[in-house]
Amino acid sequence: MNRAEAIARRKNSPNQSQMHFARKGIITEEMAHVANDESIDPAMVRDEVAAGRLVIPANIHHLSLQPVGIGMALRCKVNANIGNSELTGTIETELDKLRISVRYGADTVMDLSTGGDIDAIREGIIANSTVPIGTVPIYHALESVSSIRELTVDKILGMIEHQAKQGVDYMTLHCGLLREHLPLVRRRLTGIVSRGGAIMAQWMLEHDAQNPLYTHWSDILEICARYDVTISAGDGLRPGSQHDASDEAQFAELTVLGQLADRAWDKDVQIMIEGPGHVPFDQIEMNVKRQIQACKGAPFYVLGPIVTDVAPGYDHITSAIGATAAAYAGAAMICYVTPKEHLGLPNLEDVRQGLVAHKIAAHAADIARHRPGARTRDDEMSKARYAFDWERQFELALDPETARSYHLETKSEDCYISEDFCSMCGPRFCSMRLNRMLEERYGS
Amino acid sequence: MNRAEAIARRKNSPNQSQMHFARKGIITEEMAHVANDESIDPAMVRDEVAAGRLVIPANIHHLSLQPVGIGMALRCKVNANIGNSELTGTIETELDKLRISVRYGADTVMDLSTGGDIDAIREGIIANSTVPIGTVPIYHALESVSSIRELTVDKILGMIEHQAKQGVDYMTLHCGLLREHLPLVRRRLTGIVSRGGAIMAQWMLEHDAQNPLYTHWSDILEICARYDVTISAGDGLRPGSQHDASDEAQFAELTVLGQLADRAWDKDVQIMIEGPGHVPFDQIEMNVKRQIQACKGAPFYVLGPIVTDVAPGYDHITSAIGATAAAYAGAAMICYVTPKEHLGLPNLEDVRQGLVAHKIAAHAADIARHRPGARTRDDEMSKARYAFDWERQFELALDPETARSYHLETKSEDCYISEDFCSMCGPRFCSMRLNRMLEERYGS
Repeated sequence: MNRAEAIARRKNSPNQSQMHFARKGIITEEMAHVANDESIDPAMVRDEVAAGRLVIPANIHHLSLQPVGIGMALRCKVNANIGNSELTGTIETELDKLRISVRYGADTVMDLSTGGDIDAIREGIIANSTVPIGTVPIYHALESVSSIRELTVDKILGMIEHQAKQGVDYMTLHCGLLREHLPLVRRRLTGIVSRGGAIMAQWMLEHDAQNPLYTHWSDILEICARYDVTISAGDGLRPGSQHDASDEAQFAELTVLGQLADRAWDKDVQIMIEGPGHVPFDQIEMNVKRQIQACKGAPFYVLGPIVTDVAPGYDHITSAIGATAAAYAGAAMICYVTPKEHLGLPNLEDVRQGLVAHKIAAHAADIARHRPGARTRDDEMSKARYAFDWERQFELALDPETARSYHLETKSEDCYISEDFCSMCGPRFCSMRLNRMLEERYGS
Repeated sequence: MNRAEAIARRKNSPNQSQMHFARKGIITEEMAHVANDESIDPAMVRDEVAAGRLVIPANIHHLSLQPVGIGMALRCKVNANIGNSELTGTIETELDKLRISVRYGADTVMDLSTGGDIDAIREGIIANSTVPIGTVPIYHALESVSSIRELTVDKILGMIEHQAKQGVDYMTLHCGLLREHLPLVRRRLTGIVSRGGAIMAQWMLEHDAQNPLYTHWSDILEICARYDVTISAGDGLRPGSQHDASDEAQFAELTVLGQLADRAWDKDVQIMIEGPGHVPFDQIEMNVKRQIQACKGAPFYVLGPIVTDVAPGYDHITSAIGATAAAYAGAAMICYVTPKEHLGLPNLEDVRQGLVAHKIAAHAADIARHRPGARTRDDEMSKARYAFDWERQFELALDPETARSYHLETKSEDCYISEDFCSMCGPRFCSMRLNRMLEERYGS
């Protein structure tokens, strides 16, 4: 789609949000694009956007964007976090991470950079990205002052508007963590583990004041409406351990997020809600259902959840397990976790590992939710397996290079491989060949 | 425990099975060992063994064994498959795989070798293993003849007794796949994918006869009772694709397995039931509950299940997702799947990856099932994270070397790391440090 033309035609509207147009009964180019992408009725996309159950993060300044919808009516989406820290990472590295993220199927990408030339990195990422870009503005806001005491409300709002102008499609705002919630944290093993949540908590302590993202919600909504920034309401009190899951602090914040979602919708501003975190497997469905209820169906965007704390180095797996259960229960987007979680910053290989693990989770949940067409690729793969069509199997694989290289590794060890059997069983024990006998006997 | 002495004291019993002793009210050394290992009442272990809900695979000829219990009353167990094919693998390689399996927490190991000096490999593995060893006798039986036509019933029974004498603790027998089930397979995309199932099907076709493991069930039970071999009733008709899951063929076989379990219990023979396979996430709980009902609570031992077919190279992850759901629903043991599944034979690194992924699944399910003490290690890890105690984190990790090396990788990139912050956020955005401020303000 040509976004520049579409946006130009709508330029006189005081509110640029997809929700605003949807509520006027308009099917925008973005909605039509999403509907086409997901093979569903454009009117349904419009109605879901109007109801707040579906967001299309699409800043009017992000012209290279191919719009993506996030909502329960659609395929489950996967976000990849990239971004440097104060200590490591350059713009080239981050653009490489963007490319590998999109290549391995990231539906959105968050730039969490906190060091170096943050503006240049962000602008480079937005200019080069066809997928929606998310940020956490408070990171850069804090980076721009010498201490948190100097971080005024104006500077925070200024940073939100600055990033909105740059074309950021969605922003994580830790707006539901209130001053009165802070004492609830003392019962935890791991306190506040959300970086943004920790910054807001520190701000409240240092300024002896309420959360400015909460007190200035109307100002924020006004900015978001103007550029169509989708709010991703951050869960600053998400649990950082199995022990802390589903506690009073977490749910106190969720209640406030539900109230803020209502206020966003009053101004036709798109909003989704972020969720945990570290959650035992048996509490995941309850968490999703509770969010849906508290936030009246606003799309739920979960980080993991991670289902055990004892597997550093493998948290892409602990997270993929929880994410499958969350997406099956109704989460609309899952944020990837890489093998480096809890240990360090991910490199390119970690980004790939994290993405494939979470594409698996999202896809498995789509199959389990019986989304139309979700199993088609699996069935094609199964047919290719049955036919010993290795090239077709690689083509259908989520990561064709890895599948091919693993297969070739065994092939070279075994000296040979034929089309009639594979190296797992050898020529004598091939169960696939038996199936041909069965077909001959009983028909197929 | 000193197994030789314990077994010698019981040598006059015509039936050597743990179930036989349990039903006489005896708490054997093996039961006491399991009870101690799991911190539960020995009388409860005995009663569960007597009821058939718990098996302790412990061949009287496997003297180096440290007995392991498999049942819903206990921690979820993980099995690792090792073994060569006709084309690849030596005894040294297989012993290396055994060692790495035990090191990364395999509760049992199956030797699926089908090539080379199979007897020497099996004997070497049993002699060197403290964990129960399982096999699929039909593999070696077929290997010992020049074609399946020459594989007589006597040869099959002879092989079962031969392996029982060698000290195999449990044997997969594809006894529930009947001749009349074969036509049901034609509706499938991937036919019969179980190697043992395919062999039995081929046997039935070539011999124009019923499954000999079914017709000679009483003879098999007699052998198993004598050596206390636990039967692992194989699911020869397990689905090999999402498409084929939960079909008529699969459940027809399951019904027969339930009948055969009853007959095993009539002879005080221990039995568990194998399960799928490839199953969509939404069908897993149903599959487990159905097995529990059809087989009256016999322990369920599942392979995966894999929740999507499109991720060759990552099937340790697709399987860990399904295995968590299965174990949470009541499966007693999960069989690992390695990244090489569907592509080739696993090497040592694949064994490690497969094991860690499935230890995660089993542990996550134990937490979710609220098994006493299951979360203790997670809580210790969380405390170590909160305290920035990296050494303690590595110590508690399922794979300490990987966790340490990932952490050091970032450390070297960042030039330094202090005990007060980690390289993920850098010194300025450290959320853990904020928590100390909260503690000072509100107490801890």
